Amino acid sequence: MRDVSIIGVGQTPVGEHWETSLRHLAYDALRAALDDAGRPQVDGLFVGNMLGGELSRQEHLGALVADFAGLRGIEAVRVEAAGASGGAALRQGVLAVASGHMDVVLVVGVEKMTDVVGNERGAALLTGLDADYEGAQGVTPMALGALVMRRYLHEYGVEVGDLGGFSVNAHANGARNPDAMFRNLIKAERFASAPMMAEPVNLFDAAPDGDGAAAVVLAASERAADLVPKPVRVAASAIATDTLSLHDRSDLLALAAAELSAKRAYEQAVVGPDEIDLFELHDAFTVLAALSLEACGFAERGQGWKLANEASIGLTGKLPVSTFGGLKARGNPGGATGVYQAVEVVRQLRGEAGDNQVEGARRGMTQSLGGLAATAVTHIFEAVE
Amino acid sequence: MRDVSIIGVGQTPVGEHWETSLRHLAYDALRAALDDAGRPQVDGLFVGNMLGGELSRQEHLGALVADFAGLRGIEAVRVEAAGASGGAALRQGVLAVASGHMDVVLVVGVEKMTDVVGNERGAALLTGLDADYEGAQGVTPMALGALVMRRYLHEYGVEVGDLGGFSVNAHANGARNPDAMFRNLIKAERFASAPMMAEPVNLFDAAPDGDGAAAVVLAASERAADLVPKPVRVAASAIATDTLSLHDRSDLLALAAAELSAKRAYEQAVVGPDEIDLFELHDAFTVLAALSLEACGFAERGQGWKLANEASIGLTGKLPVSTFGGLKARGNPGGATGVYQAVEVVRQLRGEAGDNQVEGARRGMTQSLGGLAATAVTHIFEAVE
Repeated sequence: MRDVSIIGVGQTPVGEHWETSLRHLAYDALRAALDDAGRPQVDGLFVGNMLGGELSRQEHLGALVADFAGLRGIEAVRVEAAGASGGAALRQGVLAVASGHMDVVLVVGVEKMTDVVGNERGAALLTGLDADYEGAQGVTPMALGALVMRRYLHEYGVEVGDLGGFSVNAHANGARNPDAMFRNLIKAERFASAPMMAEPVNLFDAAPDGDGAAAVVLAASERAADLVPKPVRVAASAIATDTLSLHDRSDLLALAAAELSAKRAYEQAVVGPDEIDLFELHDAFTVLAALSLEACGFAERGQGWKLANEASIGLTGKLPVSTFGGLKARGNPGGATGVYQAVEVVRQLRGEAGDNQVEGARRGMTQSLGGLAATAVTHIFEAVE
Repeated sequence: MRDVSIIGVGQTPVGEHWETSLRHLAYDALRAALDDAGRPQVDGLFVGNMLGGELSRQEHLGALVADFAGLRGIEAVRVEAAGASGGAALRQGVLAVASGHMDVVLVVGVEKMTDVVGNERGAALLTGLDADYEGAQGVTPMALGALVMRRYLHEYGVEVGDLGGFSVNAHANGARNPDAMFRNLIKAERFASAPMMAEPVNLFDAAPDGDGAAAVVLAASERAADLVPKPVRVAASAIATDTLSLHDRSDLLALAAAELSAKRAYEQAVVGPDEIDLFELHDAFTVLAALSLEACGFAERGQGWKLANEASIGLTGKLPVSTFGGLKARGNPGGATGVYQAVEVVRQLRGEAGDNQVEGARRGMTQSLGGLAATAVTHIFEAVE
């Protein structure tokens, strides 16, 4: 199998892009990534998207984006794994280059979620859960997040505010990211008075749905150094799955897919959690941040919440997390999120993160979750010496 | 890159499976394929599906099917390219095994299209077209097929009945396939009196939407012969795309994606059209059968319709086509169709096609189209000596 590197990255700001269609968003991101890569010839396109069919009445984004981007004829498909669609598309791109069938591949994550009326988005998001056993009962992703958070608080004797540090950190980093959806700071002492979304999940615990697109260009590592000055190596790429329904899990507080995909990634990269310099995790809810840190070996079971402070996860902390704002402040454009994470880690490893730079970052990890972590996609990236 | 073979196949009948959910259909097909392959350990699952989100309110089929099939934890994603989703999923499976990241991969195409009310299916099918420029104007796949057919008739001086032989052949073969949706014979002389769908496309020109699932098991060729007595080699696997909108094409009668994907497939397999023993094509409309034959080099431009007779495409003809009934008689379960085609060719190459056997078949081709051939997926399979 061939080694794979990222040779270009691009993204749009995350926000409410009502005036911009899926194809335009995807184009803006991929054009930036191709420019960044020196405009190589591309062999294939993988589009990560979750809700195009439901919210834009548009499936078939592979052919659509390929044509609109001036890549007519190219091999192109869409990859979907709910909120992990972007990470899953990146994984397919890695497999395509590793196989030797393609030399240069474009991966785009794109989502439009805000230009809707009534409860259209809420109904669409249910399609990532178990339609027969969860969606049909009216449970929402927010409600599932609340179930898990309540259990976490109960099981480990944690208070609501104890998880707030994840959001405080995310907003501190997002405030310095011009592409972030929310650039305001939030204060820990304001946490308790935030409006309740689904008890005990409040406004500051939950990431905002947004519109946006991000893109990376992949190439065989043997060619990458000839193409760009700072290729970033894909040291690991792994997907794992869990039950779609929360009620089928024997342990509500173990993110089995997150743990398994991280295990596979560590094995591929031949590293352990101590050797990861920064971590872009799927902080759709603060409790997911805690559980992801536990699943990936950064904290013992029931101890993840103790990392919710600047000394642990700030830009100068032991393990910087959500360095450009994460889902919470940069925003959560569904199936695009996993690619945003990759773009952000690449910027860190190239030393191009500006005010958000993690000093000396050489190895970064991303983890994208779909459904209530029924799909987990974990990547490890390394700066090339 | 590693060579890839098919070591197991399975399918459900195509029909109206109102009582069976997506996960059950997928399970029935993949269990049959795994049994056929001797129940190997599986490393990954690729699910081809087009309309789960729209018609079953269920996205995220990778994790869902993996769990329901007893493969909890496995790497699993959904692949979508409108009606070519199944073929595209097969392509991703091939890349995964070729890469060396996975040894044994399961590919499932599954679709439920008939258990709907009103015009729900019609609206859903529009999502495979260009939503902004075609779908929003109310054009349907059937209407686009009619535009292309009318142009074909006009340009080449062909009569409606001249294309009917494709459907007569499909139904003749479907009548002997217990898994076919329609097992009735149709007669050429009845063609002119068939009810009109969208002039000049009549009931006999158009394939029926159906429910069903098909599955194949892939393995590295170096291991395949140890696992099963009759592995079938994937000699070529190629995807190409074209404009999603018909109005963007300079030539309405050239299926550019079909031609390009066939060209890539011939190059990979190092064969030409003369060396193909049978062809499962995407006969969603009779005119598409003619145009596919032209695009793939089996007929000159404007001459494809002349093959619509038993001597050319019957089971004992020069190039047997739709040997189990094709989309027209076996039925067209959207994103499952491309996998059905692969199952059918494998059965032919293993000499297990029963009453539908093409004598001496050693090499077969499949071509799956999405949208109005905006995505084309072409595979070539070879019996192993």
